This record gives sequence, structure tokens and C-alpha cells, in this order.
Amino acid sequence: MASRSRISPVLRASICRSSAPSSSTPILSHAVASHLRIGGIATATVSQRLLSTSARLRAPEISLTADKYTDIKRGDFGTLTAEHVAHFKSLLGNESAVIDGVTTDASGDIAPFNEDWMRKYRGQSRLVLRPKTTEELSQVLSYCNEHKLAVVPQGGNTGLVGGSVPVFDEIVISMSRMNQVVSFDDVSGVLVVEAGAILEVTDQYLAERGYLFPLDLGAKGSCQIGGNVSTNAGGLRLLRYGSLHGSVLGVEAVLPDGRIVDDLCTLRKNNTGYDLKQLFIGAEGTIGVITKIAIQCPQRPQAVNVAFFGLESFEQVQRAFREAKGQLGEILSAFELMDSESQRMVSVAKGANRPMEDYPFYCLIETSGSNSEHDYEKLEKFLEDVMEKEIVVDGVVAQDQTQITSLWGWREGIAEALGHWGAVYKYDVSIPLGEMYQLVEDVRVRMAEAGLVGTGDGDLVVGIVGYGHMGDSNLHLNIAAHKYDEKIERVLEPFVYEWISKRGGSISAEHGLGVAKKKFIGYSRNETVLGMMKDIKKLYDPNGIMNPYKYI
Amino acid sequence: MASRSRISPVLRASICRSSAPSSSTPILSHAVASHLRIGGIATATVSQRLLSTSARLRAPEISLTADKYTDIKRGDFGTLTAEHVAHFKSLLGNESAVIDGVTTDASGDIAPFNEDWMRKYRGQSRLVLRPKTTEELSQVLSYCNEHKLAVVPQGGNTGLVGGSVPVFDEIVISMSRMNQVVSFDDVSGVLVVEAGAILEVTDQYLAERGYLFPLDLGAKGSCQIGGNVSTNAGGLRLLRYGSLHGSVLGVEAVLPDGRIVDDLCTLRKNNTGYDLKQLFIGAEGTIGVITKIAIQCPQRPQAVNVAFFGLESFEQVQRAFREAKGQLGEILSAFELMDSESQRMVSVAKGANRPMEDYPFYCLIETSGSNSEHDYEKLEKFLEDVMEKEIVVDGVVAQDQTQITSLWGWREGIAEALGHWGAVYKYDVSIPLGEMYQLVEDVRVRMAEAGLVGTGDGDLVVGIVGYGHMGDSNLHLNIAAHKYDEKIERVLEPFVYEWISKRGGSISAEHGLGVAKKKFIGYSRNETVLGMMKDIKKLYDPNGIMNPYKYI
Repeated sequence: MASRSRISPVLRASICRSSAPSSSTPILSHAVASHLRIGGIATATVSQRLLSTSARLRAPEISLTADKYTDIKRGDFGTLTAEHVAHFKSLLGNESAVIDGVTTDASGDIAPFNEDWMRKYRGQSRLVLRPKTTEELSQVLSYCNEHKLAVVPQGGNTGLVGGSVPVFDEIVISMSRMNQVVSFDDVSGVLVVEAGAILEVTDQYLAERGYLFPLDLGAKGSCQIGGNVSTNAGGLRLLRYGSLHGSVLGVEAVLPDGRIVDDLCTLRKNNTGYDLKQLFIGAEGTIGVITKIAIQCPQRPQAVNVAFFGLESFEQVQRAFREAKGQLGEILSAFELMDSESQRMVSVAKGANRPMEDYPFYCLIETSGSNSEHDYEKLEKFLEDVMEKEIVVDGVVAQDQTQITSLWGWREGIAEALGHWGAVYKYDVSIPLGEMYQLVEDVRVRMAEAGLVGTGDGDLVVGIVGYGHMGDSNLHLNIAAHKYDEKIERVLEPFVYEWISKRGGSISAEHGLGVAKKKFIGYSRNETVLGMMKDIKKLYDPNGIMNPYKYI
Repeated sequence: MASRSRISPVLRASICRSSAPSSSTPILSHAVASHLRIGGIATATVSQRLLSTSARLRAPEISLTADKYTDIKRGDFGTLTAEHVAHFKSLLGNESAVIDGVTTDASGDIAPFNEDWMRKYRGQSRLVLRPKTTEELSQVLSYCNEHKLAVVPQGGNTGLVGGSVPVFDEIVISMSRMNQVVSFDDVSGVLVVEAGAILEVTDQYLAERGYLFPLDLGAKGSCQIGGNVSTNAGGLRLLRYGSLHGSVLGVEAVLPDGRIVDDLCTLRKNNTGYDLKQLFIGAEGTIGVITKIAIQCPQRPQAVNVAFFGLESFEQVQRAFREAKGQLGEILSAFELMDSESQRMVSVAKGANRPMEDYPFYCLIETSGSNSEHDYEKLEKFLEDVMEKEIVVDGVVAQDQTQITSLWGWREGIAEALGHWGAVYKYDVSIPLGEMYQLVEDVRVRMAEAGLVGTGDGDLVVGIVGYGHMGDSNLHLNIAAHKYDEKIERVLEPFVYEWISKRGGSISAEHGLGVAKKKFIGYSRNETVLGMMKDIKKLYDPNGIMNPYKYI
């Protein structure tokens, strides 16, 4: 499998599926065409305001996380010396270290390991270690633990909450060299893979064997499986394949004291004691580093169909979702929501017309099954039904893979389209379905009241959009702005978290806590539960060296 | 919802679906009939040896677990006094306690709480408490913790490893009065329910709303959801709906010190800290008592189809499974394996002919989907294909619900059929698929070599059968005997555990550890993992009052 040591922010964004041809307007299904109207052409009035890619590359240096979060103080950890570095080199070999600033012999560019791709967080690490085996990592961690050297495990560094970059001078443990498939059983579908394997590469390996990795997300070209599991990534098809807590069968991890936790079970059922591996799923590297996982992979569906439609209200979106669950049942693999504003911004970024005219809401439905004819029939019948009931106003069904890719581009391209404006505030939250979209509307009102949007060309805020995984009650509230600014932050926080807390939602659905949400966890968790979490952290990492300043 | 305080072993067995009409031989599908042969009639030569139900009721008293497991010594716990009882009565009211032997005022029959339905374990508890609320349970536990009184939480008491009955004089905490549905959201499908709710009653509640409880097992008429979650029950449809680690969204539990863990999240995605609820799933009540759960329920499939077929070898069973996964994909909801011997014994117990003549192996396939026509077509095509490829020799497809129930009866009736003989040794294990059935054959050889079977009428062992959930690599190895006897045990243990350990299997796939497998956990878990488990136990239950003498 390919190993990749770093990817620039720009490259990374282009790996998203949204890079697929965007000019081909999907053609209507021959069978449903009679019921549907072809959409109009969206205006691109703000395209001249779009920052060019070259402007992006000249972006100023990211401010240090330590300067931005002044309430975070460096912990009582050891400071890296030349002697430490020499020890690590003797353990791993010269080529496994990137060093800058410890000794005079700077090796390689350490900057990409210190920054996140959103350009919101920057650490000050002077050493990156890239072990090749679990045993090497075990030796590294036990040495760090002994010398109280703080570490931050890093996968593809595609996170959105600053969880995988250092805050101060933590040593970066890059997993990119542990990227092999260990085994795959093509009867049971159980894959054992190292943590540093890239999601898309692994999925391709499985595709060649008729199987599928049960997780898919926009960053798949760069993100690593160990990072996916450590952040309990949800992604696009959780609706169909469930959460990693269900599909991950086993985990191998290294504790800070160097102990190797071999819980790499490849069986679907194993009721012999506490299910400890679950603690590592979503722990964001705070109690140990995941080195391998065993995961149950489903057979790759032989038939994939995609429909895209416009709706007049969020009420109708909910009705459509309910109908889809009932009529499409076992083949429904995605039910995605996008608001009008999100599609306007994608249209601007792509410089392309939308698949249909302007509606307040759009949904993308994907089905995956074993019989193309059956699935297409079900999807068509469903679309006819929801149009007859006047739930859906307008709809298209993709006719081939190009159109499927193109339609998905309107959903997956949102993050990239917003990223062009200089700054994006991202909230990834779970809210009970009925009230899910209300948050976006309430934020729009507040932002207008604060005079940050809607007043003219000088507006700080470019767009406030809501989209996400309707099937999982998971909303992405994104606020694109010309720059990160405290005025915007004051409008958003703690307002957003309080709003969610009141409704029993979660302040982090799938992105995790990282640095960004550490101090807000109290909005989603009570004192007893937080106390228990702190006990677990203390139990496994008594010196607190694992990914400090984050999580809980 | 109905509450049920006790069920006799005989009643409990009859609740199994196997009690369905067994005389109706399934009719061949009109479409596949031309390819299939009608099976012959199985002989019932040993029916005269079957113990009658009346003989069963006169069974001698079960020996005390403490007498059987002489290596287990009573812990340094407090001894129940009249003063303790008075305190509990003041907390819960008179009607919430069953007392026998503490004071002179015996109230109710305590025996059923001390015994398991397999008649293998008997404890000596003198007090059963039945709290009605989480707060009551919290007060009970914190008092027990303070006075070092050991407790054993008890659900439907349908377990197979002695996990839910006392060993010595532990106080039984019966959850049967906490049996209400708290809430159900019919858009998201999220159910919140109290731990004492009976599985079948809850599933019926969901059925009325078009939904399904994502777990199904033979004991559903008696087992309680809290017990299902505490033992991480797997059951018949894990293949389709996944494990409880994936479907349970939230848990409310009470820790031994009385703290209420409110982690009753109803959201599919919530990445805010360690997923602590996972520790309670499968903990068998050793770190706290689950009081409520939130669970994601799928829509009830509108179409269910069942096929039953005979095969010549386990090699062919594996081929059939692979074909089924590929061709039936998303609608495959069960792939069950039964050997010839298991079906012979069901036939004897039922006094009915088998659905087809004698083959070394039988499989039962169930599909569940949203479109009956599509599903039937897929199933038929699959059967035609596997018969054409000579993977399957003989097959029937159920034509209506009666036939579905009847065919399932041949699978679900095995446990009951074996139970008639006086004693059953049950091993519930996971083994990599390729070698799964070899264990049964190896045990047969050993048992014959020991002269315990195959020598004539005086054989101690009546039958050695293998069946289980092929889809989960989960084998049930059952040895029916006239009585529990050390000669049999010596042949079986540690042989079976060593055999499984060598092949990287699990000594407990879905039944848990309880008393039965506590000392064998080392065959499935290494020292590091066991050490971490003990740390967790110590962290949450420092006095060790929660379900002692069991688990780890």
C-alpha cells in the first residue's frame, strides 16, 4: 500500500470526490421524466468574490494555537534534548525521524506535522517519529512515559478540531509507515489492517476482492484508518453500515507505559470480559495509540443508485426521510441534506449550474444493493410516490457512474466550496431530527442582528449554511467568513453549544473534541460521566503524556 | 407492559418458538419444486428413551453451586441481618422484597431466584429486592456498598452460564418491576426502555409501530432487555442488525456507590469523550446495574422468507454461505447451521418427521426486506443457482407464516429437544469459519474413546450435536446426557477450551462467562488485557460487591 508522508492543504481538498467533472448536468431518468421538471439555472452573482487558489497559497502564517488559546498552559512535561533524539534515532533509525530545532541537524520539513489543513491550529513540535512496527512504538512510548515527554499521535491529519496537531512541543507520532494490510478473509469479510493505512487505498484493496470498507468520508484520500477509529468517524454511510463501535471487531494498541494491548479479535462474537477495545474507539489518542484494527467488511454492493431532489420545507424533508426508510429500507445507504445556501456556494465555487432550480432544501438519496433492477424499481417507485404526495417538488435520478459522481459532488463539494473564503467556522452536531435545521435559522438571525451579514459588500460573513447526514440526525453548521474574527466567535459561542444542550443534542457528532471543543464537553456530558472519563484517563495514562490539552 | 416475577423452567422452555405447530411439513415452492426432491422420513428409534414432562417435574433438587465449585470461597462480605432487611423495606416498601430465612416472616418463594432454568446452578440468597425506579436502586446499592453486602442483578434469569443466580448469599436485585417503555420516536426509530422489560413484549410494542427490536433469541418470551445488554446477547439476527455495541445508543446505569450514570443518549452520533456505556454492554452486572437503554430500532421488514436445505459436507455449507452473502446481500437476515444429529433429536422430541431426508448438514436461510416479490425472486434464484452448482442437494421454501414458523422450529427447537434428557453440556463458541465444525467431530471421537457413547443402551451420553449461527462463525456444541457426570466433564474440559484457544477462537461467543467460564477466560484473553479488565473492575467496584465469584 502507498505511504504518504504529507499532503498540502490544497492537494488534500482536491482528493474529495467533488473534484469529479461538475459540468455534466445529470439527465432525468427515462421512467420518471414525465413527472419531473428540469431545474432552472442558478445565478452566480458572487463568483467575483471567490478567492483564487493562488491567493490561497499566499495565505499568511497560521497563528500558534498556544497564542490563540491563552488559557492553555504547557504541562509539567520534560523538554526534548539532543540525548532524547539520539535515543529515538537508535531505536528507529535516522529515516524515521523529522527533527527541527533540537540539534543543528534539521532533517526534513516539520511544518506540515505542526499544522492542520483547515489552517486553524499550529503547534511547535520539534520532533516527528515514524515507527514501522508495534514493538518500535511500544519502545518509543515507554521511553516518553519514563521521561515525561508528551506525544500527539497523528494519522492523516485531516481532522477539524485540532486533535492531531501539537499545541506546544509534543512529539508527533506519525503512523504513516504502518500502513499494511495484515490479513483478509474473503469468506468472513474480516480485514486486519495497520493504523496508518489510508482509507481510500484500503477500500480499493477491498474493492478488488468484492468487499467494501464500512466507512466513507470526504477526506478518504488522506485520512488513515487508525485516525478514523480513534475519532470514531461517522461519515456518509453510517445509516447503512452502522458505527465503528459495531463494525470494529478488534484493536491492537500501545499504552503509554509501552504495554501492547492485543485485543485484535477477528470474530463477530466474543463475550469474554469487558469490551476494552471500545474505549480506544473515539478516544482521540488520549489513552494509547491504535496500531492495528480488525474490522467486519460487507460485500461491495453490485448496484448503486442515486437520486437528488428539491423540497419546499424542512417539514417535507422529514416526511421524505420517513418514506425513504419505509420504502427503501435495507437498500438505503445515504440520505443527505443540503440547504439552498450551501448549493449556491458550491455553484459559485464550481462555476457550474445546479442540477435543478432553487429550492429551500435538497436531498441526496443513495441506494446500495445486490440487484440493480430491483433497486432501481424501488427508487423510482419511491420518487413517484413522494412526488404524487407533493413531498418532493423536483427530482433527478443518476443514469450512470458519471452522473452519480456528479450528483455526489453537490454534497461532497460543500466543504471545499466554503474553504475558498479564507475562514470557516464548522459545527458538527447531533440534534433531534425535528429541530435539526432550526439551529441554522437561529444563527442567521443572530448574525444579521450583529451586523455581520446582510449589510453589504463589507460583510465579514460570506455564508451560513446547513447540511449533513439526515439519516443520522447529524447537522453540519458552517459559517464561511473572510477571516477568523472574534466578533463572529462571540456571536457563535457559547450560543450554539447552549442551544444544542437545551435540546439534548451532542456538540460533537462525528468530528470529536480535540482542542476546539474540550472546554465545551460539559454541554453534552454530566458531572458523573465526566468524572468517570477522567478516572479512565488517569488509569491508562497516569502521567498525562498522551495528546494533552485536548479531549476531556 | 406485563411484568413477570417468575417462570418455571418448564413454562420457560415452552415459550420458545419451537412450540409452534410441528406437524405441518413445509410445502415446496411452486417455482423451485421441479429442481428439488421431497425428503424422506426420519426414524425415531430412540423416542422411548425420552423423559416425559412429568418425570422432569420430579427432578431431584439441584445441588448447590457452592458445593459443586469447591474452589470458590465466600468473599469477605457482610451477612444479612434483620436490621438490613428493615432498612430495605423502609426504602422500597414491603411488596418489593422476597425474604426467606433472615427473619421469621418469610414472604414469597425465593427458590426460583436462586436457581437457573438449566438446573445447573443454585445459590443461597435469602433476600430478593425489586426496585421500581433508578433512584430506589441507587439507594439500595449505596447501602449495600456501605455495608459490604454482595448483590447479584437478575433479569429474566434465562442465562446459560450461571451469571444471574447467587453463588452464596448475595442479595438478588430483580429488575422485573422496571419494565416500562420510556419513549419511542417513530421518525428516528429510537426506543428508550427500562431494563426489566421483556424482549418479546418490547418487540411487540415496536411491531405495532412498524419497527423491530434489533435482537432476537429463543428466550425472548422471558429474557429482559437489561439482561440482554448486560450479557451482550447476540442471537439469531446479528448477521443483519449487528451487535448491541453498535445499536445501543445510550445506557443509564447505577454504580455500586449509588452514582447514577446518565449516558442515555438517543443520538446515533455522539463523539464527546470515551464511550463509557460500552463497558456496561457485556459486563454481566459486575460494575453496575443497567436501568435503562436507548436503542436504534430498524423498520420492521415487510417481507420475510425462509428456506431450509440439506447439504453433503461442511465444505458445501461454507460455499453456500458465501453464495448467500453475495446473492442475497442486504436481505440476508439469518444463516443457521444444524447437523444431522441435532435434527434427529428434534425429530424425536417433536415426534414428527423432518422437513427432508437425512443429510449430514442442514441450513436455514432467512431473508428480510421491504419488497416481498423482489426478495422471493432473489431467494429462488439463489436456490436454483446453488442446486445447479451442486452445493445444495435438497431444499424447501416456506410458503406462508405457518411454514416459516415450522421451519424455524427445527432450528429453535434444538435446545428444548436436548433439554429433555436430564443434562446438557453447552459450549457457545466462536471459531474461524473453516474449522468451525471440526470441534464437534473431535469431541465425538474423544467421547467414543472414553466409552461414554456408542457402546449401547447404557451410554451416559445421548447425543453430541453442533449447530449455530454460521453467519457469525458461532457454534453451539451441545452434549446431551442422562445426568451431569464428572466422567463427561473430564473428557470435555479443558480439551474444548484448549482446542478453541489454539485456533484463535472465543470460549464464549454470546452466552458470557458467568460462573461457568470464569476460570477459563485465560484461553481467550491475554495477561495484559486481563490486567486492564481487573483495573476497570477495581475502579468501579472497589469493594467487589457486584456479582462476585463470576466473570473475571
